Amino acid sequence: MIQSYIDQHKDRILDELKELLSMPSISAVSEYNDHTRKTAEWLKDHFTTIGLKNSKLIDVDKHPIVYADWLEAGEDKPTIMIYGHYDVQDPGNLEEWESAPFEPTIRGEHLYARGATDNKGQFFTHIKALEAMLRSHGSLPVNVMVVIEGEEESGGKALPNWLLEHKDQLNVDAVIIADSEARSEHVPAIEYGLRGMFYCEVTAHGPKSDVHSGIFGGGIANPINALAQLIASMQDPQTGNVRIPGFYDDVVGVGEEEREVLKQLNFDEHEFRGLAGVDEHWGDSNYTLHERVIARPTMDVNGMVGGFIGEGAKTIIPSKASAKISFRLVANQDPKTIERLFREFVDAFIIPGITFHVHVHHFAPAVLVDRKHPTMERVQTVLQETWGNKPVFSRSGGSIPVVTSFAEHLGALPVLVGYGLPDDRLHSPNERMKLDMFWKGIRTTYELLNRLGS
Amino acid sequence: MIQSYIDQHKDRILDELKELLSMPSISAVSEYNDHTRKTAEWLKDHFTTIGLKNSKLIDVDKHPIVYADWLEAGEDKPTIMIYGHYDVQDPGNLEEWESAPFEPTIRGEHLYARGATDNKGQFFTHIKALEAMLRSHGSLPVNVMVVIEGEEESGGKALPNWLLEHKDQLNVDAVIIADSEARSEHVPAIEYGLRGMFYCEVTAHGPKSDVHSGIFGGGIANPINALAQLIASMQDPQTGNVRIPGFYDDVVGVGEEEREVLKQLNFDEHEFRGLAGVDEHWGDSNYTLHERVIARPTMDVNGMVGGFIGEGAKTIIPSKASAKISFRLVANQDPKTIERLFREFVDAFIIPGITFHVHVHHFAPAVLVDRKHPTMERVQTVLQETWGNKPVFSRSGGSIPVVTSFAEHLGALPVLVGYGLPDDRLHSPNERMKLDMFWKGIRTTYELLNRLGS
Repeated sequence: MIQSYIDQHKDRILDELKELLSMPSISAVSEYNDHTRKTAEWLKDHFTTIGLKNSKLIDVDKHPIVYADWLEAGEDKPTIMIYGHYDVQDPGNLEEWESAPFEPTIRGEHLYARGATDNKGQFFTHIKALEAMLRSHGSLPVNVMVVIEGEEESGGKALPNWLLEHKDQLNVDAVIIADSEARSEHVPAIEYGLRGMFYCEVTAHGPKSDVHSGIFGGGIANPINALAQLIASMQDPQTGNVRIPGFYDDVVGVGEEEREVLKQLNFDEHEFRGLAGVDEHWGDSNYTLHERVIARPTMDVNGMVGGFIGEGAKTIIPSKASAKISFRLVANQDPKTIERLFREFVDAFIIPGITFHVHVHHFAPAVLVDRKHPTMERVQTVLQETWGNKPVFSRSGGSIPVVTSFAEHLGALPVLVGYGLPDDRLHSPNERMKLDMFWKGIRTTYELLNRLGS
Repeated sequence: MIQSYIDQHKDRILDELKELLSMPSISAVSEYNDHTRKTAEWLKDHFTTIGLKNSKLIDVDKHPIVYADWLEAGEDKPTIMIYGHYDVQDPGNLEEWESAPFEPTIRGEHLYARGATDNKGQFFTHIKALEAMLRSHGSLPVNVMVVIEGEEESGGKALPNWLLEHKDQLNVDAVIIADSEARSEHVPAIEYGLRGMFYCEVTAHGPKSDVHSGIFGGGIANPINALAQLIASMQDPQTGNVRIPGFYDDVVGVGEEEREVLKQLNFDEHEFRGLAGVDEHWGDSNYTLHERVIARPTMDVNGMVGGFIGEGAKTIIPSKASAKISFRLVANQDPKTIERLFREFVDAFIIPGITFHVHVHHFAPAVLVDRKHPTMERVQTVLQETWGNKPVFSRSGGSIPVVTSFAEHLGALPVLVGYGLPDDRLHSPNERMKLDMFWKGIRTTYELLNRLGS
């Protein structure tokens, strides 16, 4: 039934997705605020159009939450929240894009655009499944609340705060989230683990303005040299292990049973290196490469700048240098504890004439879901029937900060089934979504909601 | 006599200097190439106007040399080369300038502009002394060659190469250079030592494009982290000592006699910190602060950039990161040897998945002039008579790459007497020159040329 609905409305649905993708809702860059808001308004109107109720924008911090619901399935039916985010990452260097990031373009079997897979293309599969049900039957098999936020890519705390404030009105059994990868085009995956994060920016301040390195060189400390020393001292260059005392104290290791589950993912080290475009991988040889990227914490400098970065040469000691540093965390590291340990490390790192300032961008605790929950069994069955293959359980190295809030604040089970693929290039130039995966996402959501309502 | 000439032409001379300073001859930034050439053409015409002969542009590499001469003093008179550079440093952040860098502005006793002291304002004192002589007497007391280059601030090798190629035609006894500081407004200084330089750019290459730190973090090396490790491993963070093996092998130490000469400079550590705007100075306590900044080699990162440096947070492992690194060198470190040692160090610094590339910007050997040369005695006498105070001998932490070439290729004695002051902010926002120093520079050059011709 759902397939015939898709066949009938394919072109119109694709046009809607392209329209959504054409809006540059870059939440981290304030000059795009108008576009980001227009995207939210477009979704609000769209939710009303397809038959959802109470569609509205909820103004929280920087960018509104789009909320809609349909709660007429009856009290005996479960309430399912649909979560997604309509904001996207900055597209970066436009010259590296084969087609413009906000001009959605189909080439071959893929749709290319910033946000194609992260997350507009993915959450839109849920919306179109709801539309098919509402248009075909005039009803849904479960109660549904749709919550699409606009601050996921900029580390906003607004949605977690809103969930906490409204937890009494949000009696939700499970939250369906499509913001992850399938094992492959044919093998579905259920995410049960996500890494958390502590993201901050450190600035080293030195002389009051850029000064001549001939006059002052050797006599005053250089903020770039000092920041490099601070960064280098925090991490072993060969293993990547973080040297901040206490950093690993609360890390939960991978047990034997989980190791067997992970083996079924057949993590391909060669493919991993190919996707990154490196000849050699890197890290602590006490762990497999797979474990390193999903079950071990990290420290990465995401950006660093200081001094003269133009063409040519300039002989200065700059007044400052700064680095954006992110730590991926795993269960049960507490981001606030990591912040404290980090600040203590920085405070103890003393170079005369240099002052370090720490600005925290955001926190997110790691997530580990019980793989044996009854709802998880149903999800597995639907995936096997719809895809023709048994799903694998996977654990991701990424972070979806709000997922912890669903579990902690609402007591809801996070159900993470994704329709992205490993080569979708999310956060990179030429992000894309495979169109087959988009249609499969609609079919899967349709069957899953039916099963949860039966 | 010279004072009455100055009094009579003061306004016109200032207008000419302002016109010269208004031209943005930023040699390191190619988009300013037209302005840089126009500056050279202005000087060429000006030299003809004041009575010099053979004024012309010599096209060498990026920016022409401006050459002019007056060789009619007779073979029994010495030939003096006047050296300067008409190119300037990039002005940096325009918001930090109180008046625009290329709108020369007099405030109080100073003229503010990029290049005011480094070097347009200083070499122009020589030009105006020649003008006064030519206009008043129709002749000069010595033979003069004027060589004003346009690549000093961008590490060009064109002038040294040109000097080497034409050394047989350039029978020069001494080169007069005003590109340094006086001890104070009332005490002149003769520079006898300059630091040299090895300036390069290191780029760390990692993944083929920026990739998601959630997916790849912990599994591939991060170019920024790796570059920070490389930089940190090259230098002791507390002493600043360079850890590249062999780096100090050829360093000539400061002897007892020279230490006495340097003591007369009354180097003021408090003033030094004030000029830099730091509470504490830094470096190897085995040397005085003064020795560290003039007679010891350094390593400073002048600029570094990699990854996401915009507003907000982005979770990527960047494809590359780069740092501009300069080493100030002292006698008798050979820049080519330092390059080799540096490259060996980088080659031996191995992080899986990271490739380091080294690009050399420029070299300059250090200079140490014999303080007891007969010409230096004459210079001392003129300075004492013109300023009313005995000059000090000083050694500078900066570099004037071409000065070695004058000594090596032409066998000429470099005479470095500067009219800058320590708070002129060269290479920084709000660069300026004290007007009294400008007029004193004209008077001093006038008397010096007369003495050398007598």
